[in-house]
Amino acid sequence: METVQLFNALTTIGLFVFAISGALTALRNDMDIFGVSMIAFVTGVGGGTIRDVMLGSFPVWWIVSPSAVFICLAGAAIAILAQPLIDSRLKALIWADAAGLAVFSVLGAQAALAVEAPAVIAIFMGAVTATFGGVVRDVLLNEPPLILKQDIYATAALIGAGVYVGLLAVGVATNYGVVIASLATFAIRGAAIIFDIPSPKYARPRKSEQE
Amino acid sequence: METVQLFNALTTIGLFVFAISGALTALRNDMDIFGVSMIAFVTGVGGGTIRDVMLGSFPVWWIVSPSAVFICLAGAAIAILAQPLIDSRLKALIWADAAGLAVFSVLGAQAALAVEAPAVIAIFMGAVTATFGGVVRDVLLNEPPLILKQDIYATAALIGAGVYVGLLAVGVATNYGVVIASLATFAIRGAAIIFDIPSPKYARPRKSEQE
Amino acid sequence: METVQLFNALTTIGLFVFAISGALTALRNDMDIFGVSMIAFVTGVGGGTIRDVMLGSFPVWWIVSPSAVFICLAGAAIAILAQPLIDSRLKALIWADAAGLAVFSVLGAQAALAVEAPAVIAIFMGAVTATFGGVVRDVLLNEPPLILKQDIYATAALIGAGVYVGLLAVGVATNYGVVIASLATFAIRGAAIIFDIPSPKYARPRKSEQE
Repeated sequence: METVQLFNALTTIGLFVFAISGALTALRNDMDIFGVSMIAFVTGVGGGTIRDVMLGSFPVWWIVSPSAVFICLAGAAIAILAQPLIDSRLKALIWADAAGLAVFSVLGAQAALAVEAPAVIAIFMGAVTATFGGVVRDVLLNEPPLILKQDIYATAALIGAGVYVGLLAVGVATNYGVVIASLATFAIRGAAIIFDIPSPKYARPRKSEQE
Repeated sequence: METVQLFNALTTIGLFVFAISGALTALRNDMDIFGVSMIAFVTGVGGGTIRDVMLGSFPVWWIVSPSAVFICLAGAAIAILAQPLIDSRLKALIWADAAGLAVFSVLGAQAALAVEAPAVIAIFMGAVTATFGGVVRDVLLNEPPLILKQDIYATAALIGAGVYVGLLAVGVATNYGVVIASLATFAIRGAAIIFDIPSPKYARPRKSEQE
Repeated sequence: METVQLFNALTTIGLFVFAISGALTALRNDMDIFGVSMIAFVTGVGGGTIRDVMLGSFPVWWIVSPSAVFICLAGAAIAILAQPLIDSRLKALIWADAAGLAVFSVLGAQAALAVEAPAVIAIFMGAVTATFGGVVRDVLLNEPPLILKQDIYATAALIGAGVYVGLLAVGVATNYGVVIASLATFAIRGAAIIFDIPSPKYARPRKSEQE
């Protein structure tokens, strides 16, 4: 498969699953059909949009690739139609989110490397691309950010982007690097979900301090 | 009237009413006078700013048109002075918001068409321009987003932008299209407020699922 | 000292203290180590990033100056290590925030003047640079924005930026202007913290109105 086709396929997957996660969150908030579609779109394209803005790649990617709109609308439609069949929307949301996280952390790092950002910035941009669609979703819906509530979330994205940058640095071909790093990210995030792995922390919260 | 004058007049109206809505929300939160002015400004220019960033139109519009600052400060001053006379700040806020929504959905779509964005993107940008000033206002003030609580809100903006793009497509002159589409949007939003029209939805929320 | 060295030194201070404030807030929310680092970074660079985007200065400043990442990580590490020694994390947070506010309001106004923005925009950009790192921090962590809860906060930033623009206008040298205006901002904010000075307001909140 050509690299550009692989990237397009992974972008489509990432958009689709993030759109589903956005739509599920919006449905839990009793939004109307257009609101659900809009949140699905914002969740899908949000992380990559923030990345493009930081890097100065204008117009942002989905302006010139309006198929993103239709992929996100398809994700919203699937979420709406499938939800009576879904046992736990929260669980479906967390797994859709994990898939998007895996794909977008790697694609985000790649986009930063493509404009010759330093490695440390590329890794950070991978995490931004992967997590900020969900952050925008949660902020718009006034929900406690999933990035906060879930252990090993931003962490998984940073590791995934780091693995990708590392693989390229040791000479692995782009196509293999993208696939290996995406699967590694999904495995890490999935293990954290299944085994409920706690992240390394330094202290218990002292919420009582907040006045 | 020249098209550019019409656009400037409508922009002034939109800025002014959104600034009032921002100031009213800030006043409800007991902010100080500079805070109120800042929220008024951010609410007024927020949607168009996000649109300009997405489209890659830099610097964003109000940097080169600082009269926007003064229009927003005037809106903040009016809100401060008028509030003892206002029966319900929430009601005044909702109607000011409706007027801003009507004007900015059409102007936002126009701005996207002006840089040759595809029709579907232009419609989406209309909704972004119209709704994201209010979203930023609500996010900054930690209030549940009005876009969420109000039925037929983003929906009205999407329809308004769609009507405008449609009118131009069938050959209606820009000036007439702008006015007709703005009035249509205001009528839709106003009807939703007055008659408390519910939006099409697919399921009741199952909030208990959120742990 | 050369102007560029002075600016770099002040930027380092601002980044460092805002990173500490971000890390302290994240620690209070029980985030994992990577989450804490990410919030520290976003708090440090957030205000200047939004300023750069508004002004159309791309790529945003820290992309080409990755030392910002390491300064913020250092701030996060200090916050993590020092927190058992800190009596009140909320108090430490407020003072770190005050120092960042002082430095970034002046640097933000300077950055806007450097691209020939009008004076009123430069003052506003100073306040944006100084306050929006903290706003992004609070929004990401779903906390009530400090900008809202603290009196004379955005106000201090606006005054600081205004003092700086005013000093340059009357012919004070850049270096002296930066230092004087920063110290003035810190003094104003510090006095507000110590003496709990209320800001000028126009009305008591009528929260009961919010349904």
